[in-house]
Amino acid sequence: MNAIIENQLIDKLAGAFPRSPNQLNGLRESDAELIRLPGTDTLIALTTDGVVEEIEAGLYDDPYLIGWMAVMVNASDLAAVGAEPVGILLNETLKPDEDEDFVTRLQEGIRDACTACNLEVLGGDTNFSSQRQIAGTALGTIPDGKPLTRLGCTPGDRLFASSRLGIGSAFALSQFRMDRHGETKVDYRPSARLSEGQLLRRFASCCMDTSDGAIPTLDELMRLNGVGFQIDSPMRDLVHPTAIQIAAGASLPAWTMLAGPHGEFELLFAISQDCAAEFEESARLSGWKPLPIGLVTDEPGLRMELYNGLSSVDSSRIRNLFTQSGGDPESYIAGLLRLDALLRA
Amino acid sequence: MNAIIENQLIDKLAGAFPRSPNQLNGLRESDAELIRLPGTDTLIALTTDGVVEEIEAGLYDDPYLIGWMAVMVNASDLAAVGAEPVGILLNETLKPDEDEDFVTRLQEGIRDACTACNLEVLGGDTNFSSQRQIAGTALGTIPDGKPLTRLGCTPGDRLFASSRLGIGSAFALSQFRMDRHGETKVDYRPSARLSEGQLLRRFASCCMDTSDGAIPTLDELMRLNGVGFQIDSPMRDLVHPTAIQIAAGASLPAWTMLAGPHGEFELLFAISQDCAAEFEESARLSGWKPLPIGLVTDEPGLRMELYNGLSSVDSSRIRNLFTQSGGDPESYIAGLLRLDALLRA
Repeated sequence: MNAIIENQLIDKLAGAFPRSPNQLNGLRESDAELIRLPGTDTLIALTTDGVVEEIEAGLYDDPYLIGWMAVMVNASDLAAVGAEPVGILLNETLKPDEDEDFVTRLQEGIRDACTACNLEVLGGDTNFSSQRQIAGTALGTIPDGKPLTRLGCTPGDRLFASSRLGIGSAFALSQFRMDRHGETKVDYRPSARLSEGQLLRRFASCCMDTSDGAIPTLDELMRLNGVGFQIDSPMRDLVHPTAIQIAAGASLPAWTMLAGPHGEFELLFAISQDCAAEFEESARLSGWKPLPIGLVTDEPGLRMELYNGLSSVDSSRIRNLFTQSGGDPESYIAGLLRLDALLRA
Repeated sequence: MNAIIENQLIDKLAGAFPRSPNQLNGLRESDAELIRLPGTDTLIALTTDGVVEEIEAGLYDDPYLIGWMAVMVNASDLAAVGAEPVGILLNETLKPDEDEDFVTRLQEGIRDACTACNLEVLGGDTNFSSQRQIAGTALGTIPDGKPLTRLGCTPGDRLFASSRLGIGSAFALSQFRMDRHGETKVDYRPSARLSEGQLLRRFASCCMDTSDGAIPTLDELMRLNGVGFQIDSPMRDLVHPTAIQIAAGASLPAWTMLAGPHGEFELLFAISQDCAAEFEESARLSGWKPLPIGLVTDEPGLRMELYNGLSSVDSSRIRNLFTQSGGDPESYIAGLLRLDALLRA
């Protein structure tokens, strides 16, 4: 797992602490922490995530979106473990003498996202600093005590996405005005896939949200499960039409919309061949049409249907690229284009 | 409650959200949020608090102390509701290219505080920004479903502190080098009163920690319960000897060490007259000697044993003073001295 810069950091920071005997998941094995409450049979899901770099880099400049996302990033983690949402605590760091309109719109974003996710605001803490940031901690329950984790898929399982992917990258491109025309509006307001996650708890062999983009999510799932993935769905089916259009405007191939690091909070998951039909029927009955995208394979590594048919894609290189670009969007895109040239060759 | 600037802010931010039917406590009625998990009998305590202004103002400059406090501020909230500690999630916002030693010492402070509090690190989130901050979210359980809150004391109840007070203010004075000699070292490393809180759950009629200092805590408890407090313990018994010494070095009277806004994370609580003897015996058996400080009264307001015997103290003015001083320590102390002149007159 050490090929991934982000994982090195997590190991370093979390490695200093022992794991709790009440915790079901190991480090990085699930999107939310899974905790058996001592002296009870109750299993809860807890997760914490903040909107920090997105504000500082100017990616999120609308206070309503900041509030919405502070809730959604956490709700999406609950979705990926199949939890039933209970509530959220908020840590708001505002500027001293904060703009009233900013606070009003921020609170509206939080409130609307909570309503959409069936999450109650349970409490919080407000601080003041020269640099704004909003974090949340979401709480859910796992009613039958059987959560969904990132672990468990085996070769032969079918791979799905909860919907088309790439809107997270497309939004980042348009926000930084990197698409040539800048005429296509990207309506970026992801909704955590909570009801889908609860259904998946009955069926999926592994699950993770695309908070960091689709390819980084596939990369992490492959590593954790010691398998490979074959994505045989063509890009025109896999990537959201708006994302394809935005990518074209920036002279980028569609697949780069799957590279992260800014995601769209869909779910990627695997379903054993045996129950795929029952799963698809249950999903259909609930009004949801999951997108079949490929297969879990014995052979490690990511293969995707690209210019020359099924091509090996260096997912760890893609995943490290943004960090290695020092967080500079121009340099990151140049790196993606160098990779694309290799794939076309 | 609107006389208090901090409460106005809480009302404004939290007022936008409905209360959860699963939540036992109303706004500000307890130090931690008390949540009945849907579909179970399990009552949990959840609380979130961050170390932000303390870092930015230079009050905490030792990374070990920052880590220690990020845990303790949350553990102390668990203590004040009588919860049994389970674990904590951490939100660390570090500088890009953060100093390795800083991270190591920070993690040591977190680890040692968790060990001291019997809290497990369950997970977290790390972000990068120009401004450091560390927040935590602590989880505890209330085994018999009967938590301690800030509400419930009635006239005639006896008031106690878990120990002598004022070390929080003394530390702030010495850290900002405002004591004349600067020779007395203040060993500021508060420990959340978790076992005391669990005992208090059986006995106390209300409880709150002194995270914002003793007088602000007394003020909040009086307001919430619609009562007054008579503090008849003299300052030499109430204020920690080191705090008295530091105050003297800064030409400040001892009582100002109770004014906040930086506290010492002791507990202030009331015990009904009927069970005071049994409580004190139970405390003694556990090796703890709580400090009797006064009485709950019918007559509203705070009276303290000062220069002219029992004197009315304007606790709301004291509580607002730091905010009204724009957070400037010199101006805050000048305001305290103006109040002191009135009390001496």
